[in-house]
Amino acid sequence: MAVYTEVDDEALDAFVAGYDIGGVLSCKGIAEGVENTNYLLHTDAGHYILTLYEKRVAQRDLPFFLGLMEHLAAGGIACPVPVRPRNGTMPGELMGRPAALVTFLDGVWPKRPKPAHCRELGGALARMHLAAAGFELTRANALCVASWRGVFEQSGPRADEVMPGLYDWIAGELDDLEAGWPQGLPRGIIHADLFPDNVFFLGTQLSGIIDFYFACDEALAYDLAICLNAWCFEKGNEFNITKARALIAAYHAVRPLDDTELAALPLLARGAAMRFLLTRLYDWLNTPKTALVTPKDPMEYVHKLRFHRGIDGPGGYGIDG
Amino acid sequence: MAVYTEVDDEALDAFVAGYDIGGVLSCKGIAEGVENTNYLLHTDAGHYILTLYEKRVAQRDLPFFLGLMEHLAAGGIACPVPVRPRNGTMPGELMGRPAALVTFLDGVWPKRPKPAHCRELGGALARMHLAAAGFELTRANALCVASWRGVFEQSGPRADEVMPGLYDWIAGELDDLEAGWPQGLPRGIIHADLFPDNVFFLGTQLSGIIDFYFACDEALAYDLAICLNAWCFEKGNEFNITKARALIAAYHAVRPLDDTELAALPLLARGAAMRFLLTRLYDWLNTPKTALVTPKDPMEYVHKLRFHRGIDGPGGYGIDG
Repeated sequence: MAVYTEVDDEALDAFVAGYDIGGVLSCKGIAEGVENTNYLLHTDAGHYILTLYEKRVAQRDLPFFLGLMEHLAAGGIACPVPVRPRNGTMPGELMGRPAALVTFLDGVWPKRPKPAHCRELGGALARMHLAAAGFELTRANALCVASWRGVFEQSGPRADEVMPGLYDWIAGELDDLEAGWPQGLPRGIIHADLFPDNVFFLGTQLSGIIDFYFACDEALAYDLAICLNAWCFEKGNEFNITKARALIAAYHAVRPLDDTELAALPLLARGAAMRFLLTRLYDWLNTPKTALVTPKDPMEYVHKLRFHRGIDGPGGYGIDG
Repeated sequence: MAVYTEVDDEALDAFVAGYDIGGVLSCKGIAEGVENTNYLLHTDAGHYILTLYEKRVAQRDLPFFLGLMEHLAAGGIACPVPVRPRNGTMPGELMGRPAALVTFLDGVWPKRPKPAHCRELGGALARMHLAAAGFELTRANALCVASWRGVFEQSGPRADEVMPGLYDWIAGELDDLEAGWPQGLPRGIIHADLFPDNVFFLGTQLSGIIDFYFACDEALAYDLAICLNAWCFEKGNEFNITKARALIAAYHAVRPLDDTELAALPLLARGAAMRFLLTRLYDWLNTPKTALVTPKDPMEYVHKLRFHRGIDGPGGYGIDG
């Protein structure tokens, strides 16, 4: 939630002159996106999002992310479409940073998702998985199961500052997940960060999916497991099975889940909870308490992980296995 | 540079339903404004700025600020125009805070103002002063010369943490300013915070003035003195007399400054520098060093104040007295 890089007017004019979008009418820093600097740019031709990529997004991955959005948009998925500069080279450069322009998407992200939102999401997620097939670039999942132990060790015994005993508890969970992680599931490109603030709606109709900067090759059902965690718990961490059923059934209707995927869902959901627990734990322990960006409570994902441990099949998510 | 208050979708829909502007299409928090939370709102009818007033803007002053913008817009000044809700009551309320909708203004604020920007500014400032005449509400200047001693004492001897000897130096300056402050100058409503980030341009043509939340009754020439400080120094605090001449001459051509105003300019400019020095000093000493909002360096205004002390007449600003 911050503007990390201020943009000079002259530099902006020069950058925009490289595109067929007319002149700059306004440019406002928006308080969205934790990793990059985003501006809402209005030009003679319309409204765009201008993103300056800060150091946490690896520059070498930008062709993958931008190419994926182009590929998905061409496949009918409502997502930001990169605007190609006249010289064809994406990303461009602005204020010494890689920078890209994408089309602006209307819609509002749901602060309190309802079952109808989850149903829309499920269908859109499945269509996105299908549309991504055929995209020629690949990107490994930097936060895959094999990476979690290393992320965990960066927090280490300090985990117990959050809750006494948390270090041992996570270590034990990691043993289980590493040993039992499902293999051989259908794979493809997943979004990998499909939280409500990355999905726009007009009313209860899904109008767009944004922020593809964690997209990678993974088991497709793992994306659904991330959504189960991000969309189907209430504020008090109570699981809402109505939302889960709506999400999974709508996905299944577009891209049927096979038996191995359905059976793997509880473990994938535990793993997805672990992935967000670990990065939140790290941020929690390493963000100054006075910073304006408040780190998210890692304990939320401890509760979610515990919930999924108690599920022994897809029936626990309201789905016949 | 922050979003202090998140807005629920349902609450936003209900708020917008009170206006004749159609339904919500998007709503993005923008990283502008240090005091309030601002959203860029897109509805079926167009683009607006939605402001939620946080505690530092006194609620009782909102009718003055909103009424002033209406009055100025009616007088042909390019400024945000408050949109009246159907029930006529401004401000409205959203998420427990006073909230108002104003029209969106195109334009970009100049990161490095040129003399041409200063010339545009001078004319617009004078036209704004003339247009404000006849507005029926009044608001005292909470940061007038009589208030400075009290603001200074909130920092007190800690001033020396910024520069050894600064406490005594400011105390002596305040003695001079309090004793010699010009009386009887032409008064009216001034903007009082007309820094470059509050003035939008399309190219070098001024397209709008925003952020009237310091506007108050004051000596009109004091507004010009604030602009001298905010627009006519280079990054290294060197005074640029070409910009000053452009600013003052353009103002003078629209609203001629009388002899008392011209003679008072150096002292008004010292006072304006003092006013920003004191609030910056307070913020500098009281903002956690790790906060994302970086406080502005108070020393910039020490240098500016020293410069104005060396000026003995309007000739020092490039103007014949």
